Formats: sequence, C-alpha cells, structure tokens
Amino acid sequence: MSQRQEAGAPGPAIVLIDPQLGENIGMVARAMLNCGLGDLRLVRPRDGWPSRQAESAASGAGDILARARLFETTGEAVADLHRLYAMTARPRGLTKPLASPRQVAAEIHAGAGAGRAAGVLLGPERSGLTNDDVALADVLVRVPLNPAFTSLNLAQAVLVLGYEWFLAGDAPGAAAAAKPTGGERPATKAELMGFFVRLEAALDQAGFLLPVEKRPTMVRNLRTLFARGSPSEQEMRTLHGIVSALTARRKP
Amino acid sequence: MSQRQEAGAPGPAIVLIDPQLGENIGMVARAMLNCGLGDLRLVRPRDGWPSRQAESAASGAGDILARARLFETTGEAVADLHRLYAMTARPRGLTKPLASPRQVAAEIHAGAGAGRAAGVLLGPERSGLTNDDVALADVLVRVPLNPAFTSLNLAQAVLVLGYEWFLAGDAPGAAAAAKPTGGERPATKAELMGFFVRLEAALDQAGFLLPVEKRPTMVRNLRTLFARGSPSEQEMRTLHGIVSALTARRKP
Repeated sequence: MSQRQEAGAPGPAIVLIDPQLGENIGMVARAMLNCGLGDLRLVRPRDGWPSRQAESAASGAGDILARARLFETTGEAVADLHRLYAMTARPRGLTKPLASPRQVAAEIHAGAGAGRAAGVLLGPERSGLTNDDVALADVLVRVPLNPAFTSLNLAQAVLVLGYEWFLAGDAPGAAAAAKPTGGERPATKAELMGFFVRLEAALDQAGFLLPVEKRPTMVRNLRTLFARGSPSEQEMRTLHGIVSALTARRKP
Repeated sequence: MSQRQEAGAPGPAIVLIDPQLGENIGMVARAMLNCGLGDLRLVRPRDGWPSRQAESAASGAGDILARARLFETTGEAVADLHRLYAMTARPRGLTKPLASPRQVAAEIHAGAGAGRAAGVLLGPERSGLTNDDVALADVLVRVPLNPAFTSLNLAQAVLVLGYEWFLAGDAPGAAAAAKPTGGERPATKAELMGFFVRLEAALDQAGFLLPVEKRPTMVRNLRTLFARGSPSEQEMRTLHGIVSALTARRKP
C-alpha cells in the first residue's frame, strides 16, 4: 500500500504544538484521514509518544499516527514548509492577515500547484497557540462561528479546515447537482402519461373530478404532484398496483 | 452582529435518533452552539434523559440541553417540520435526492425565508439511520470526504452541516435563492404521516401489502415515493380525496 494517497496536490501538514491528550491526537488523525490529509507533526506531546490513547482513538487512522513525526521545537517542525497558517479562535494583538478556512483552502491548493508546501499550526487544548508560535505564521485562520461560542476542539478545527481543503480540490463534486441515490431507471414520460390516463379514468368513474368545469385544473394539479417526485419505472408499477388494489371489488 | 441573528432566521432542528452515549449528545449541543443552532430533539436516548454525561460534555452549551425535547418516535419528533434531511455516510438503496451540506444549507435558508421549518435526522453512533427513518426524509445529506474514510461522529456531522448553515446565512443573497413554486404551504410531516397511515390501511384492506414479510419494504418504498414530491397541504387533501374516491362503493 502506498504511503501517501495523493490525489494530485499534497495537503497541508498538520502541526500540533504541545498537544495534551493522546486521545485528541488520535481524533486529529481520524479527521485528517476523513479529508485525505496525511502529514501529521507533533511538537512535545505532553504525555509522550507513541501513545496508546492516541492509537485507540485513531481507530482506522493508525497509519497516520505511525507516520507522524516528532519535533522538539516548532521551528524544526515547520522548517521545510513554505507557508504557515495558525489556527486561532481568539483575537490576537499581532498584526497578521486573517483568513477563513475556505480562503486558506483555496490558497493552499494554489500554492501546492506552484510547488509550495503549507502547514497549519494548532496549539494545546487548554490555551491555544503562544504568541511566539503565532509569530511564525504567515496568516491567521479563524473559523467563522457564533461569536458567543467559538471554541472547537483540535479534531474539529482540523476537520473544518481539512473539509474545506478537500472540497477546494474537488469543486465539481461540491457543486454537483442532487442525484437520486438508487440505481433505478426513471420513468419515461410515456409511462407517466399512461399512469395519469389510467388514474384519471378511475377518478372519473368514482365521480371525483367534478364539477366538470374544474376538471382541467384538477387534472393538471394531480399530474404536477405525481410528476414532481420523478418516480422511477418501478415506482410507476407500484402506483398502478395501488389504483388496481383500491378499485378492486371489496371482499364481503 | 450578523443579519441572520437579527432577522432570527431559524436554523434546522437537530434530531438525534437512538443516540447511545450522553457524552455525544453533549458534544452535539456544543457543535450546535458553535453554529448558532438551538433546537435539539432526542428520540429514545439509550441511557435516559437528562444525562449527567451529556451535561458534562456540553460545558458551555448546557442551555441547549436544557431546552432539548424528548420524543418516543421519529414521527412525533418531526411532526411540525416541513422539510427533512437525513445525514448518512453510506450509500442507500432508496431513491432520494442526495445533496451536500453546502447545498442543504442554502436550501434551508431559502426555506426559512418562506416560512418552512427544516430538520436534520442523525442515527445512532454505531449503525446510523434505519431505512424506516431515512424514508421519512426528503433529501439525503452526505459530507464530501475521502471515500476511503467517511465516518464522522455525531458532533462532527452536526458541526459540518451547522458550519455551512452559519456561513450561508452570512453570504449575501443566500436567502434570496430558490423559492417554492406555488404560494402553498408545504404539508407538515404529521400531515404526511396521517396520509400514509390512511393509505396503508386502505391497501391492507385491499390485500395489496402482501406477503406480510414484504410489507415493511413496500411501506417504506411507498412513503419514499410520496414524500419525495414534498406535497403541499392542499395536495395532501387531494391525495386523501383520491383514496376516498377510489375506495368508495361503486355505483351499480
């Protein structure tokens, strides 16, 4: 199995600085795999490395932990990167450009196309990034959320950024029109018409489409209703079956 | 302060069906508050309600738990809603439109502008939604993610959808998007359920829903078919009229 699952452009490195709980590192690995990211870097994980808690929480994303690299300083962890983003929920005194995950995702893709490697810094759970680490970054990233409650855990922050990165690389997919999920053939217009004629005949016989001057409107409304669901060919047969069943002579 | 909060465009209800761990319910409440959502509905939480685990995990979002409503059935939980989305990671055999969180977010804002209330169904952690619950939904929602690893926990799924909803409310013109065609009020889920129960009773009497071991599948397919067209309240009355007419004693 290949070490990387690159579908073209490499995604950003995820750099966790002083992460506290192994469980959270494992959840970050899962969020990364969700989004097709593979480069995890750890700076001074508090509880040591490797971590059983991380492996347990990462279930299914263990490969990302196994390939994670350990660093003593943030500087070493980001040495090979060209562009650095700092995720932060709080306003910062530092004068840095501020961007949303969507903007950053587009920028990372553009940079990757030009051979530039990007990384995203995230600080410890309790306190977030230090000003010294933020100072290393080119751009601050803030997830647009309810201003009264912006706190996300590490894995959620990675997920939102990774989700935007994944979508930005797959723009047609994101914009794709809704499609039915089943594999069934949609009914032809002829099949739809066949059902309409048959239903309307049954309703005429039952005296439903009266008074006669309202019949055209009623028929139009009925056809609109049944056509709107874009029934499949199988569903047309079910509808025929319903009319047959309901109009059959009752058992005594 | 954003326009959305001033205008009070209500976000979708989040409906957790058979949630297992209180901790996950608490995390969902946090994700909802992150995104400005407030309407949490619980159907048969496994470990009872209220839940200390939920309260502990919700830290900061306890108000949402305190206002959460408890229901015995999915039908009751969604009775007042006009449009229902089912979050699912797996492909489904059912023929339903499939949309991304971004598409759904725009649609929910447009619907709210037209007075239509939306809800999002999420199934239990281990197994996801049952086909019976999926059948109630108008649209399936799938988060576009690495196809090799699409699994998200409850709070993450809510976060991605809520994040898109929050962003869509800030996007100019989002709420001015597509409006329903007619001026008619869409049927509530309770009205839809009322029709289903009545139609199925008539079909049972006619011996249509046989053999009995196939009845659940047949009922699910029927409900899927009629729900997909998102009938209006007026159309529901027409459908009732059709059943009445077709089952009435024939004139000799």
